[in-house]
Amino acid sequence: MSDLLVKNVRVLDGDPTEILIRQGRIVAIGTDLDGAGAVVEDAGGRIAIPGLAEAHTHLDKSLLGYPWYHNDVGGGNLMAMIDNERQMKERLDLDPHVQSMRHALQTAAFGATMIRSHVDIDTTGGLRALEGVMETAEKLADVVDIQTVAFPQSGLMISPGTVELLDEAMKMGADLMGGLDPCGVDHDPKGHLDAIFALADKHGKGLDIHLHERGELGAFSMEQILDRAEARGMKGMLTISHAFCLGMPDPARVNPLLERLGALEASIMTTAPASSPAPLVKQMKEYGIHFGAGNDGIQDTWGPYGNGDMLERAKFVGLRSNLRSDAEMYMALDVCAGGGAEAMGMERRELKVGSPGDLVIVEGVAVAHAITLHAPRKLVVKSGKVVARDGATLMDMP
Amino acid sequence: MSDLLVKNVRVLDGDPTEILIRQGRIVAIGTDLDGAGAVVEDAGGRIAIPGLAEAHTHLDKSLLGYPWYHNDVGGGNLMAMIDNERQMKERLDLDPHVQSMRHALQTAAFGATMIRSHVDIDTTGGLRALEGVMETAEKLADVVDIQTVAFPQSGLMISPGTVELLDEAMKMGADLMGGLDPCGVDHDPKGHLDAIFALADKHGKGLDIHLHERGELGAFSMEQILDRAEARGMKGMLTISHAFCLGMPDPARVNPLLERLGALEASIMTTAPASSPAPLVKQMKEYGIHFGAGNDGIQDTWGPYGNGDMLERAKFVGLRSNLRSDAEMYMALDVCAGGGAEAMGMERRELKVGSPGDLVIVEGVAVAHAITLHAPRKLVVKSGKVVARDGATLMDMP
Ligand SMILES: [Zn+2]
Ligand SMILES: [Zn+2]
Repeated sequence: MSDLLVKNVRVLDGDPTEILIRQGRIVAIGTDLDGAGAVVEDAGGRIAIPGLAEAHTHLDKSLLGYPWYHNDVGGGNLMAMIDNERQMKERLDLDPHVQSMRHALQTAAFGATMIRSHVDIDTTGGLRALEGVMETAEKLADVVDIQTVAFPQSGLMISPGTVELLDEAMKMGADLMGGLDPCGVDHDPKGHLDAIFALADKHGKGLDIHLHERGELGAFSMEQILDRAEARGMKGMLTISHAFCLGMPDPARVNPLLERLGALEASIMTTAPASSPAPLVKQMKEYGIHFGAGNDGIQDTWGPYGNGDMLERAKFVGLRSNLRSDAEMYMALDVCAGGGAEAMGMERRELKVGSPGDLVIVEGVAVAHAITLHAPRKLVVKSGKVVARDGATLMDMP
Repeated sequence: MSDLLVKNVRVLDGDPTEILIRQGRIVAIGTDLDGAGAVVEDAGGRIAIPGLAEAHTHLDKSLLGYPWYHNDVGGGNLMAMIDNERQMKERLDLDPHVQSMRHALQTAAFGATMIRSHVDIDTTGGLRALEGVMETAEKLADVVDIQTVAFPQSGLMISPGTVELLDEAMKMGADLMGGLDPCGVDHDPKGHLDAIFALADKHGKGLDIHLHERGELGAFSMEQILDRAEARGMKGMLTISHAFCLGMPDPARVNPLLERLGALEASIMTTAPASSPAPLVKQMKEYGIHFGAGNDGIQDTWGPYGNGDMLERAKFVGLRSNLRSDAEMYMALDVCAGGGAEAMGMERRELKVGSPGDLVIVEGVAVAHAITLHAPRKLVVKSGKVVARDGATLMDMP
């Protein structure tokens, strides 16, 4: 935590002013601030936005730094893609610590000061991925806050031994219990959900469950999840990632799910996908559901997309929810910043006195312009400390 | 038309080689080519892709170069957005020639060597927009091929005098007759379509009709369009832009439309929108429908999105159609390059002997990487002449 005075900076679309951060928190915004002892940065009249929140990614398995992966699997068959990935990770002897360092630093260079990462736990790799990502979280503690989710990517009921590994993962200190398509992957929603809720119970942690299942199937699985969360009174402890089923066209089917999610103070995480139904910004707002966004995996065996840029992701959120006006573009940014932080159960980052000293200096003449431009970030500040400049972190990538 | 030898260049994902362009056409690809008299460029081992095709945009009304437009209208009400735009254009005294120069040069800097632009024809602006864009097309003849579509943005049946202006526009030399949501805007599909087909007939030109109408309404309007095009035997002369209705989930309803479009050798243009149903790449391929993509309007009163980058648009096409493998990413690129050119009724640009000498040198270690990265273009070549370098055109923007 450092003291920092940012001069000649516009707070979102405001006039140029100054922001003073002391002991890691914003203590003053205005002109002629007393920055005695503080590091001084001149933002050159650029815009400051709050630190960004990468709320759904997989730090352990990007192929960043490897020769380009030529993908001949394509989309379509989920189990084939899961199997292909597990095999490729072994063949390439991917080091989860090195990969997560590369991935997290790239994400931080784009302005994220918070990351939630799912981490594969399976009988092939065991706990190696979690160890690697936790080591990264420790090394990057001053650069970006990293949460881990123990994630049964290869299934749980169909892969004996995984439940025990997940139990170990939670003992090691994973922040949340994960889950995955209880019908689509395990073909045993009761078995899958009973197991992960029991583990979450046992370790007193929240859940973040991948739910790609669409339409009625997804709605059914979501109901099974909500039943269990409500029975346990898990207020603010449930996240459902993707939740494509909330994009179903029938409000009579969807709205009761939204009401239950809102009452649980639950979170929904989205990539703002273009090729599938998806939860929308105003829909989440209306029902008081915390809403965050993420890249999901980046440049991995699943596909060539993603880069860790949560400002570009705000553009995708805007495009997906058809947001256009200035006020709407602020909403898109919030999903990828303060709102995303709340969805992760972290303190909301805002550009006001008392907030954590996380901010990003961006190019562009207006917030909407900065989002659509997503040029390399001028400066990234975490708890009052500069961690990245001109698109690159100050710490070298391995 | 110039002679150009590009050395140390990778043709898509191939090994480094050379490309020789003479008299505006690719005459040889290989090593140790005889480039006597030709300008020589070293691509530094980068990848060459064909010249890109911006197949649907509005050159006359971007706000590029103006102070940032603060948008308080948002989405939702189509007629309010149309009215707001017409009023703003008057208030800002937008010069369609200057704006189209800015817009077209920015698009060319991103690697487009072909542009199809709809141009507003209405009783407020008259033919001024078309005059301005045609002047731009002439000035930029060596930089980018520009087609114009006479576009009744403010309606036709609801705006007396517009039909006569459209007739004038076609006499002036607009390349195609336009149209717009015959139910949604004019509320008179028969009147609207009879009028624009009659004008296309009279001037012996093809049609490019904006069709945002969704679901059954869009399918109905498309049937009315197809009826007329079939009755006139308009093979290869019909384009439908957006065509959201082709994204309807019922193949029994959609496939007969696709069959009719294929039989007409028609073209579909898309922005690959994330927030609405849309035609997909493999669907168009299966039915032999020409498929192009575009930014639509960029940075205008409709919204802050779009920049003229057809390589980024290939990413959007890939994301929208859930394309992931290398082979699929080539398809996404083709929609924005050679395939898009064909959809515009232009000669297909390809990196092979005999093709037009339009190519773009891009950053990235593989085609899929270049698409997802869409970094500033190293070099843009039109008919063997370098027109842009390091992300900027050689011609200054007004
Ligand atoms: Zn995921
Ligand atoms: Zn348009």
